[in-house]
Amino acid sequence: MATTRDWAEQLDANDELAVYRDRFVPIVDPGLVAYLDGNSLGRPLLATAERLEHLVRHEWGSRLIRSWSEGWLTLPERVGDELGRVAIGAAPGQVIVADSTSVCLYKTVRAALALRPGRIEIVTDTSNFPTDRFVVDGIAEQFALTVKRISPDPLTGVRPDDVDAAVGDGTAVVVLSHVDYRSAAVADMAAITRIAHGRGALVVWDLCHSAGAMPVELDAAGVDFAVGCTYKFLNAGPGAPAFLYVNSKHHNGFRQPITGWIGAEDIFAMADRFRPAPGIRRALSGTPPITGMVGVDEGVALLAEAGIGRVRTKAQALGRLVIELADEWLVPLGFTVASPRSDELRGAHVMLRHPDAERLSQRLIDNGVIIDFRNPDGIRVGLSPLTTSYAEVWHALSVISDVAGTGP
Amino acid sequence: MATTRDWAEQLDANDELAVYRDRFVPIVDPGLVAYLDGNSLGRPLLATAERLEHLVRHEWGSRLIRSWSEGWLTLPERVGDELGRVAIGAAPGQVIVADSTSVCLYKTVRAALALRPGRIEIVTDTSNFPTDRFVVDGIAEQFALTVKRISPDPLTGVRPDDVDAAVGDGTAVVVLSHVDYRSAAVADMAAITRIAHGRGALVVWDLCHSAGAMPVELDAAGVDFAVGCTYKFLNAGPGAPAFLYVNSKHHNGFRQPITGWIGAEDIFAMADRFRPAPGIRRALSGTPPITGMVGVDEGVALLAEAGIGRVRTKAQALGRLVIELADEWLVPLGFTVASPRSDELRGAHVMLRHPDAERLSQRLIDNGVIIDFRNPDGIRVGLSPLTTSYAEVWHALSVISDVAGTGP
Repeated sequence: MATTRDWAEQLDANDELAVYRDRFVPIVDPGLVAYLDGNSLGRPLLATAERLEHLVRHEWGSRLIRSWSEGWLTLPERVGDELGRVAIGAAPGQVIVADSTSVCLYKTVRAALALRPGRIEIVTDTSNFPTDRFVVDGIAEQFALTVKRISPDPLTGVRPDDVDAAVGDGTAVVVLSHVDYRSAAVADMAAITRIAHGRGALVVWDLCHSAGAMPVELDAAGVDFAVGCTYKFLNAGPGAPAFLYVNSKHHNGFRQPITGWIGAEDIFAMADRFRPAPGIRRALSGTPPITGMVGVDEGVALLAEAGIGRVRTKAQALGRLVIELADEWLVPLGFTVASPRSDELRGAHVMLRHPDAERLSQRLIDNGVIIDFRNPDGIRVGLSPLTTSYAEVWHALSVISDVAGTGP
Repeated sequence: MATTRDWAEQLDANDELAVYRDRFVPIVDPGLVAYLDGNSLGRPLLATAERLEHLVRHEWGSRLIRSWSEGWLTLPERVGDELGRVAIGAAPGQVIVADSTSVCLYKTVRAALALRPGRIEIVTDTSNFPTDRFVVDGIAEQFALTVKRISPDPLTGVRPDDVDAAVGDGTAVVVLSHVDYRSAAVADMAAITRIAHGRGALVVWDLCHSAGAMPVELDAAGVDFAVGCTYKFLNAGPGAPAFLYVNSKHHNGFRQPITGWIGAEDIFAMADRFRPAPGIRRALSGTPPITGMVGVDEGVALLAEAGIGRVRTKAQALGRLVIELADEWLVPLGFTVASPRSDELRGAHVMLRHPDAERLSQRLIDNGVIIDFRNPDGIRVGLSPLTTSYAEVWHALSVISDVAGTGP
């Protein structure tokens, strides 16, 4: 009876994380059956709604400009420190919350290049998320660098052997995603970082699809730079600021290209020349986006309560359920499971491929099952352990089966 | 009786804009006498508080990921168009709201440089706001360019003659602020732009201290690029996204350096190579910061109601009142009025200099008069016509007089 609805409900009854679902803003939409797109946009916490109200009425509305010195100015580092501790294995003083992932990626890749003068190659891979490839290509074009693109097996993602074959003495930096945005394949961060370092290259890891969904150990892996978004598994809100990690071993040497005033040693000196702030703060540029930052703060706080270990365990169980149901109901209808079957090697989503995926995706959304279509033939089922229930997954898969089974 | 309290109250009674004060979140702080720092952080609108609540509960919380296609994705241009129309004299399709001023400045200066290959000089001025000078210096360092710094008269700011003397055949771009952040001197945008163009150079104008406070006519002046923040006179909130203007004459040619996915022609194609979106949209990089954007939208909407012309007229009248009271009460105490006395040449703040300004500023804040200290000896009195009353100014100046008069 592995795939009955009763069984899914039994899993929910035994789920230690089920209590956290009530901490989120209720979805008011009678037609919505399942929200399996938290890996594109996580749901809002009730605490974030309350915090924004307090921010507007009290901090911004009544304390006014004084709030900058009463806490806002240090938010990028304080929230970054907590995010580092709770989600990505970074000791304090190495993470800030700022800008967008694209801008943070630009800063870190440029900073890495500056630390490797004379080396003119960037290594990335063809399955990396578009913004990563685009930003890397844009930098290469501006600075007459070459980009070497690994073409990994779509199902496994980039493996250490791939990197070993690609990285050479001319490689300045390797830019990869920790979890593949299509297949959910988890890259071996520690091994790949070691290989890159062995050739004298630096690494920039994009954690968009792993931060908040599974333990990441940046310090332990000796990673140089990392970036990621907060609006997926950290539930920080649409376009909430990204995070940027710089390993403390680089803090004396790194310079990022957008030398705005907030990254200066003394912001209010109104100095003649820019002198970078010590440590991670020099990675900042403009005025920190406070309304977006409180969502990050609250999202990280809830994750701290729930624990990234439990989140990971539930994400794996939800993934197994998707795969079991897909094998039973969807594979006979022409679907393929395009994510790793091993719990260890799979992030917190499952990719289902189908030749008619684009049209099916629209019909699913029309039927209240919100998933992501990913060009050209992927239906991405996102699993957010703090909000996704087993019964929700069961319902969603049954609707996919119905919709795909009944034809157009 | 030009400077009695009654007279100030009479000015309020006759003020057409006084009604707009009730559209803002009330300040809950019994000790606060006057908030004269709206040019650092404008106050929140009630509409913004309500809009954020709706955003979190409905758009983000219930429509979830669908909100991106239901309006969020086009917000940067839609809010930008309205800001362009209401505040800065830009026809539709030339303004986006995104990133921070520092990042927007980086993008526009780099885009301008790319349009003037072979020219290796950037002209700016020593009184420009630190982030402008720092970002320019950072770009120059990265690309082996030279920076020529005009040293303007502090009171008048940069004059056309200064620019005429500085700009040459090797100048790629002139980067200046429209309103000086210390003196409030208004630069002659049209004349300076004409002079730069006459030498084949482009201009980037920073509108941080003019957008929302006085009419700006970017299209009419033939400006190439402009940037500015929204959290001052546009009341959009702490760290709200900035705006970026690119004149349509450059839309075919301009390329900015941070080629993220949101600036691509087809975001969801997940294409192999970056192809820039047509028009202003190519100036975008990362996912738009939606929670910050709604404050811009509401701030611009209120300005549209009030009208930039009336805002400007009141800002000038408030400035005159500050100067009259300063002449009468403060100059005898050792203060200097360090802003232009001409209404036409002064933005929406007045700078008062005093040798003991730093200590006085703290005592003023302790006494409920919130102004800005500006290194080394400036007390900056910000005037936000939609929230600042004449009586508030009168009270503030009387407190300054008391505090400075009673000694330490």
